Amino acid sequence: MQDHLSQTFSALADPTRRAMLARLSLGEANVSDLAEPFLGEMSLPAVTKHLQVLEKAGLITKTRKAQWRSCKINGDGLKEAADWMEHYRVFWEESFDRLDTYLKTVTAPPKKGDENV
Amino acid sequence: MQDHLSQTFSALADPTRRAMLARLSLGEANVSDLAEPFLGEMSLPAVTKHLQVLEKAGLITKTRKAQWRSCKINGDGLKEAADWMEHYRVFWEESFDRLDTYLKTVTAPPKKGDENV
Repeated sequence: MQDHLSQTFSALADPTRRAMLARLSLGEANVSDLAEPFLGEMSLPAVTKHLQVLEKAGLITKTRKAQWRSCKINGDGLKEAADWMEHYRVFWEESFDRLDTYLKTVTAPPKKGDENV
Repeated sequence: MQDHLSQTFSALADPTRRAMLARLSLGEANVSDLAEPFLGEMSLPAVTKHLQVLEKAGLITKTRKAQWRSCKINGDGLKEAADWMEHYRVFWEESFDRLDTYLKTVTAPPKKGDENV
């Protein structure tokens, strides 16, 4: 049994599942609309499996509306992973600062009167 | 061949690898010091394999210092995943706002003169 954070990262480790979340970031969608763009490259059971992985990881929720099953993003499901990531922010900001310092040493200052630089 | 973002999330989807990153967030460490806390529960080749996954995903870098191989976090390797996550921030902030609104409706206002509430 995977811990929750591992389950979240594992669910995100797939381009199809991230594409599904990207679609849902634009708004709720029913399962068949969500599946449609992927059916050229994979079967409906494969699409359904991806949705199940997202649902099991708590990244989406499915609700039944009349005869439709509608999916939407569950923000809480991403928060733990984002909080984990936040702890490491200092490391990529540090490397950006180093790049910035380096660029300042290699770029010449703009010439006087040249306002387009 | 996994895309880079999938490789990153996949590398993060394991508690041992996240524990190794947590250790490295305190500072560089040589491979044997980094491996040591895990050797009770797994073999050295298993630990080495985890380090290779982190290195291949670009999350750590190894350098050779005299006879030691030293590991450190590579912040750049996490940035793409953090940027991806950032796009979804609105969803967990939204659900936090909903909770906040709910709590305001169910908690009574503090009584006059009671400064400890």
